[in-house]
Amino acid sequence: MLFRSNPQSVHSWGDEARDAIEDSRSKVAAMIGADPEEIVFTSSGTESNNFAIKGLVVAHQARGKHIVVSAVEHFSVLNSARTLEKQGFELTVVPVDKYGVMDPDEVRRSIRDDTVLVSVMHANGEVGTIQPISEVAKLAKGRDVVFHTDAVASAGTIPANVKELGVDSLSLAASQFHGPKGAGALWVRKGVRIMPFIEGGVQEGGRRGGTENVAGIVGMGVAAEAAKRDCAQISQRVGEMRDTLETKLTTASIRTHIIGQAVDRIYNTANISFEGLEAEAILILLSEAGICASSGSACSSGSLEPSHVLKAMGLDERIGHGAIRFSLSRFTTPQEIDHLAATIPGLLSRLIPVNS
Amino acid sequence: MLFRSNPQSVHSWGDEARDAIEDSRSKVAAMIGADPEEIVFTSSGTESNNFAIKGLVVAHQARGKHIVVSAVEHFSVLNSARTLEKQGFELTVVPVDKYGVMDPDEVRRSIRDDTVLVSVMHANGEVGTIQPISEVAKLAKGRDVVFHTDAVASAGTIPANVKELGVDSLSLAASQFHGPKGAGALWVRKGVRIMPFIEGGVQEGGRRGGTENVAGIVGMGVAAEAAKRDCAQISQRVGEMRDTLETKLTTASIRTHIIGQAVDRIYNTANISFEGLEAEAILILLSEAGICASSGSACSSGSLEPSHVLKAMGLDERIGHGAIRFSLSRFTTPQEIDHLAATIPGLLSRLIPVNS
Repeated sequence: MLFRSNPQSVHSWGDEARDAIEDSRSKVAAMIGADPEEIVFTSSGTESNNFAIKGLVVAHQARGKHIVVSAVEHFSVLNSARTLEKQGFELTVVPVDKYGVMDPDEVRRSIRDDTVLVSVMHANGEVGTIQPISEVAKLAKGRDVVFHTDAVASAGTIPANVKELGVDSLSLAASQFHGPKGAGALWVRKGVRIMPFIEGGVQEGGRRGGTENVAGIVGMGVAAEAAKRDCAQISQRVGEMRDTLETKLTTASIRTHIIGQAVDRIYNTANISFEGLEAEAILILLSEAGICASSGSACSSGSLEPSHVLKAMGLDERIGHGAIRFSLSRFTTPQEIDHLAATIPGLLSRLIPVNS
Repeated sequence: MLFRSNPQSVHSWGDEARDAIEDSRSKVAAMIGADPEEIVFTSSGTESNNFAIKGLVVAHQARGKHIVVSAVEHFSVLNSARTLEKQGFELTVVPVDKYGVMDPDEVRRSIRDDTVLVSVMHANGEVGTIQPISEVAKLAKGRDVVFHTDAVASAGTIPANVKELGVDSLSLAASQFHGPKGAGALWVRKGVRIMPFIEGGVQEGGRRGGTENVAGIVGMGVAAEAAKRDCAQISQRVGEMRDTLETKLTTASIRTHIIGQAVDRIYNTANISFEGLEAEAILILLSEAGICASSGSACSSGSLEPSHVLKAMGLDERIGHGAIRFSLSRFTTPQEIDHLAATIPGLLSRLIPVNS
């Protein structure tokens, strides 16, 4: 009856569902070094970011009307901030360098007396770049400004300990670490005020209404437990495969660029540009060959423009248009990497470079 | 790979997930007589109501600052409206009679030149009362005011055809008709402007960001197809069991009240008050006897107060405190009904009436 019962019900089947949710809450909390009661389950990383940005800003608006975000944030952060901008808030978008890294000094200069929120993502899902979060968090703390980090691309993949990062809130999504789609969470540090986003009943301590997605939440807990347990071992093994892929592809193809290679990156992402070619065409040929890759983030597919992330990194258009993201995981095998590296050169030779 | 792939991906596994979502969208649309492209998938009925109330009001605020809702709406509607009230909107809460029915004339009197939205639920999940939606929708249309209905308790149970109801938007939730928890939808009539609520990527035509809960959405489609197909037959069979239950309980126990019995109700809900007793105590004894029932809505469990719905109906406190909701479904058997009716009198005899 676990997945058929309403966790808010008084009867014993409701108890079972409620216990399963609380067990999952403990597992998700353990993965990020948090207290279970600080975790609010949501339906996605996107919902978590909307909740954080809108909920934190509105709860702290007595302090002022200024928000700071980085230029490479996910659309769920950027668009939420832009909506607040339309409602009278002021928005500062902090730039990144050519590797996608934000300079903490830029944040320092951006913070004003009326700043209510700084939001910088932990790692970027498109290029893998890891931001200097604990440094930025200290800056925000020093000015008594609430600091949110979008850890959707990092949590469950690399350590994302809320105490070590020193942040006030953090978003995560189960599907990013082999959990089910439709399950996410927002961690909010005890004592930090936030307005509910999805308002309704008493679920999640009144912080998020709606009948709980029990199956999704349970799946998220199982995935979080596995991610925490296997993190170090996966990191080593997958990182080596990623490096092998990058080396093989740069050796095989001329005008290949590894985006963000010079800086600290998450080990499961290889963003590789085949200069002068069109990402969309490469993806179609890859798909025909049984290889799944992406351009930009999945959330912006369908657009022919280079992603806002690559643009913010100031990449040449000819490089941006040819950028492909290969995602590896604990389930990737060395054979798949060899197959991919051997397949690409033949595929690329079928494409005509743009303005070459 | 259906449930493992991101539907926004260009590769063929993404296609499969995308096709499954579109198939489900058609099935959900067919259940309510809508066009598939008018359906936006969400994570719950609560999210759908937040989306509708906040999204419609903000999109039409150039017209004015006044909102009308009924007193028996679900908390997802009431609390969303109250949040808008704090932001400067004016709220009129229309009363109901002792059966929970709202008088369309009350809505007529409430609509002003600056009214932007009227929201009245189709059926009430606690007492089952069905509201005169098509009549209220005509009133709103006549004054060119957007009209939303929360059909979470009705859609999939009784016919909820958007054209027959004449509404502009309608919320539904899969778990209310045997679909999975974590899947809901908002229908918005083509041409009616609405602001996105969960902002992010390009999913759901840019109307709702976040990686799609593919498994939940597919389950919702299957449930919608079954609900549409079997609706009439279930209605007849379950309605008879509900009536039998009510007759048996009123015959067996003194001071038993069938709430909302005199009016049009959904056939699967029996809200029965055992006057002078405490619902919470009854529920615990029922649970021990293996019978699952509830008081109020599941979203407000844990509260010892009679629900806002029973209060709005003006019920005597001694009746409100003793009200239990029994929910039947296509899976309920006559044997279960007989067992319940035979069990209740013995259980009640163990309880001490309050101030009797």
